[in-house]
Amino acid sequence: MTKTNSGRFFEDYRIGEVIRHAVPRTVSGGERALYHALYPARHALYSSDAFAQTCGLDAAPIDDLAAFHVVFGKTVPDVSLNAVANLGYAEGRWLKPVWPGDTLRSESKVIGLKENSNGKSGVVWVQTTGYNQHDEPVLDYIRWVMVRKNRLDADAADTLIPELKPALEASDLVIPEGLDFGQYDFTLAGERHRWGDYEIGEKIDHVDGVTIEEAEHMSATRLWQNTAKVHFDATNREDGKRLIYGGHVISMARALSFNGLANAQMIVGLNGGAHANPCFAGDTVRAWSEVLDKAQTDAPGVGAVRLRLVATKDAHYDFALKGENGKYLSHVLLDLDYWALMPT
Amino acid sequence: MTKTNSGRFFEDYRIGEVIRHAVPRTVSGGERALYHALYPARHALYSSDAFAQTCGLDAAPIDDLAAFHVVFGKTVPDVSLNAVANLGYAEGRWLKPVWPGDTLRSESKVIGLKENSNGKSGVVWVQTTGYNQHDEPVLDYIRWVMVRKNRLDADAADTLIPELKPALEASDLVIPEGLDFGQYDFTLAGERHRWGDYEIGEKIDHVDGVTIEEAEHMSATRLWQNTAKVHFDATNREDGKRLIYGGHVISMARALSFNGLANAQMIVGLNGGAHANPCFAGDTVRAWSEVLDKAQTDAPGVGAVRLRLVATKDAHYDFALKGENGKYLSHVLLDLDYWALMPT
Amino acid sequence: MTKTNSGRFFEDYRIGEVIRHAVPRTVSGGERALYHALYPARHALYSSDAFAQTCGLDAAPIDDLAAFHVVFGKTVPDVSLNAVANLGYAEGRWLKPVWPGDTLRSESKVIGLKENSNGKSGVVWVQTTGYNQHDEPVLDYIRWVMVRKNRLDADAADTLIPELKPALEASDLVIPEGLDFGQYDFTLAGERHRWGDYEIGEKIDHVDGVTIEEAEHMSATRLWQNTAKVHFDATNREDGKRLIYGGHVISMARALSFNGLANAQMIVGLNGGAHANPCFAGDTVRAWSEVLDKAQTDAPGVGAVRLRLVATKDAHYDFALKGENGKYLSHVLLDLDYWALMPT
Repeated sequence: MTKTNSGRFFEDYRIGEVIRHAVPRTVSGGERALYHALYPARHALYSSDAFAQTCGLDAAPIDDLAAFHVVFGKTVPDVSLNAVANLGYAEGRWLKPVWPGDTLRSESKVIGLKENSNGKSGVVWVQTTGYNQHDEPVLDYIRWVMVRKNRLDADAADTLIPELKPALEASDLVIPEGLDFGQYDFTLAGERHRWGDYEIGEKIDHVDGVTIEEAEHMSATRLWQNTAKVHFDATNREDGKRLIYGGHVISMARALSFNGLANAQMIVGLNGGAHANPCFAGDTVRAWSEVLDKAQTDAPGVGAVRLRLVATKDAHYDFALKGENGKYLSHVLLDLDYWALMPT
Repeated sequence: MTKTNSGRFFEDYRIGEVIRHAVPRTVSGGERALYHALYPARHALYSSDAFAQTCGLDAAPIDDLAAFHVVFGKTVPDVSLNAVANLGYAEGRWLKPVWPGDTLRSESKVIGLKENSNGKSGVVWVQTTGYNQHDEPVLDYIRWVMVRKNRLDADAADTLIPELKPALEASDLVIPEGLDFGQYDFTLAGERHRWGDYEIGEKIDHVDGVTIEEAEHMSATRLWQNTAKVHFDATNREDGKRLIYGGHVISMARALSFNGLANAQMIVGLNGGAHANPCFAGDTVRAWSEVLDKAQTDAPGVGAVRLRLVATKDAHYDFALKGENGKYLSHVLLDLDYWALMPT
Repeated sequence: MTKTNSGRFFEDYRIGEVIRHAVPRTVSGGERALYHALYPARHALYSSDAFAQTCGLDAAPIDDLAAFHVVFGKTVPDVSLNAVANLGYAEGRWLKPVWPGDTLRSESKVIGLKENSNGKSGVVWVQTTGYNQHDEPVLDYIRWVMVRKNRLDADAADTLIPELKPALEASDLVIPEGLDFGQYDFTLAGERHRWGDYEIGEKIDHVDGVTIEEAEHMSATRLWQNTAKVHFDATNREDGKRLIYGGHVISMARALSFNGLANAQMIVGLNGGAHANPCFAGDTVRAWSEVLDKAQTDAPGVGAVRLRLVATKDAHYDFALKGENGKYLSHVLLDLDYWALMPT
């Protein structure tokens, strides 16, 4: 019998099942340094212990998205090894900062199943939770993927399509304990624009672009122990291209968004996201954002802002997102919807 | 007089001489993070402090092969700068885990010399030992290389060919103090196959492939402070290629072997190894393993398994290793023979 | 109003103004590991805590040039985003070692202004100081750049051209507290040549070469949070090339200079420097040094040596630097003038 992991197929999932994912991971200043080498990340709260301390935290946490990638990476062997498509995210919440020295592991609960009418594949919804070494949840999110069937004659599972919030309410967000922007230093943070300066509907072109290299996206994806072979094996596709992990594009776009959103310090909610088109080495990634909503929070000096973050490649753009047919334009890589915390 | 190091030549070695190698190195979580960014390394004991603690260790050590590369890298300026060929390894033993914060240095003792009949070069055998900051040996191994003579009229050294074990006995292996697989969590480790599930003669195709980039192998090789110019200088060869450090292939293959050998957690012995063919950027590295032997140990729940690890490039394969002429097939990069520890 | 940073133009600077630069940064063993992965850095005092302790320090500091890059990187958005040319450095002094765990921030004081006769640009001189989390200065240097005007009709600022020392005196140098080379281990350091073995006028060819990759220089430049788009965006120039951050060449050349200057351990002064020609991926960087001066210091066993460090690309060379027209030869990338500390 083969000892290698061939992944799960659609017929292998059952509603309510909890999958404990393998390979817990301890993070350190090494992961932080690498995150800064791989992305032009400059949000001060993740760059400086001293800055984080003036915001009421013990030290600078590991970047929110690095925490997300670590938790996500563990799910790949069990959830998306035989995935045909990564369909969406919903209801993602950051529940606790991740600190250097923390050990993360992940669990996923199957919360939805729907076989496709062609009988060859189906959609699986999982709710994934990342835990630290104290078994405290640090992050949870819902993700759904289309997965192939292995045995086409396998009985169709019961269909259950979970009800998902189109977006988190501000009241769903968890503010890190102790967070206080009362002493926030806008000069050190890099921009003077505060929560009150952003208007719903406002769009920001983040100006800068980064041309992607194979060595970089592979290093990043490995760092999160994401093993999907499409990212690493140039012989896997006929065109010899390696598909870039969607999370690499998310982190790149978020880092680029510093220029105009330097004070959108912490990501606390993920409302949804689409990887609109594939990204390959040689593409030059740019980003723009749109303010979708704003809300106050109970934490001192802390406002919440809901943002659309769009990553594009190569071509210039004027905030165009979809064509007349309702489909994403071909230069759009990512359309992400998230909540961030900002000084008021 | 020139101040730069032109390396040692065959006539510069004397039997019994001990060479203290330069540039001690302190390792940290940074080296661990980089190891995970450079290789798809997922063995849980090196990834998670919490997992290592349930195995009786204080924390996750630095990967065995990272320790090997650091110790090996220091020997390059004194042993292999003028080497024509890296001929083999034997009797390698990991003696103590290397922890973040440890400082490593290396020493080599010349244990064998044999001038070639052409009078232009000779074979040098060294036993290299890596020490930590407490002067405790953490690793030792024998390596032999063919080295050029500088002065062709130099007297031939006395010939001494050391007797080497074809493989370590299980009783030669050193089990890390405190190691106990009694509470081993197979789910977190990623596979359910235990020591008893592997049969001598069994072969495992590790399935995945990684296409190698110049930036990655150079970063890795520099990280180990290995200075051999063939790895870095594209003007060094007529074809403009940079030869990839053999240790990069070892680490890549070992990491790929997770898929099927996730529970072969710790490497404790190196019986031998051949870099069968050179590896260059653009090659897609794959791996397969063969179970060569099995042994019990005195540590609770800990078995030993002797494995052949073969790395190949590009082409598919059916465990083929050598041609009818007894030579390695051209797609074989590495043939490594090692002992690992596994839960029983 | 746009929220993104379009940088300062010549008319935006005022003599005496102090600019507090954004995004403080905490460094760790992660930055150290990355520095060793990006450059063939082997100076023992920065590689080994144990070696640094025998030299009277508490531990191995972060590499001097890494500290420089972090401090420098923060100034880019305020000083050189609209720079036409980076004209020079002077009077750079390392004032305190930077340790893992330190948080660095930067401030620049405008000390000179001179509008060009064409009325379209001008030269700005700044004195930049890096501070640690205790507000102790760790590094200061003067830099001048040519910056575009935005409003061509803006009033010309008062002209002030600062008087700069052509080179620091030995008495200007700050020796790290406690530094003592009395127990210096030349074998572990890698070379036996001491301060007394170097003669003024002596030139050293550092032999080795490194071919540069896009992924590496971008990772390095991002790590220092240097955001200048010319380094990252291949669509920024007509030829599709990304200009390599000059500091990447400095670090590469300094690391290569180990071979012949292994004992020039600590950089304490920067007298001047010119980025003679641009460097691009694919160039093979080599280096040579010239001993410009020598001086004694009050610290036990510690001598100072003033060095010219020249980086070149591709072609071989015989220490040639400038042509008959007084201009740098086209293969010269860098001409740096610095003071280092060496065991006597």
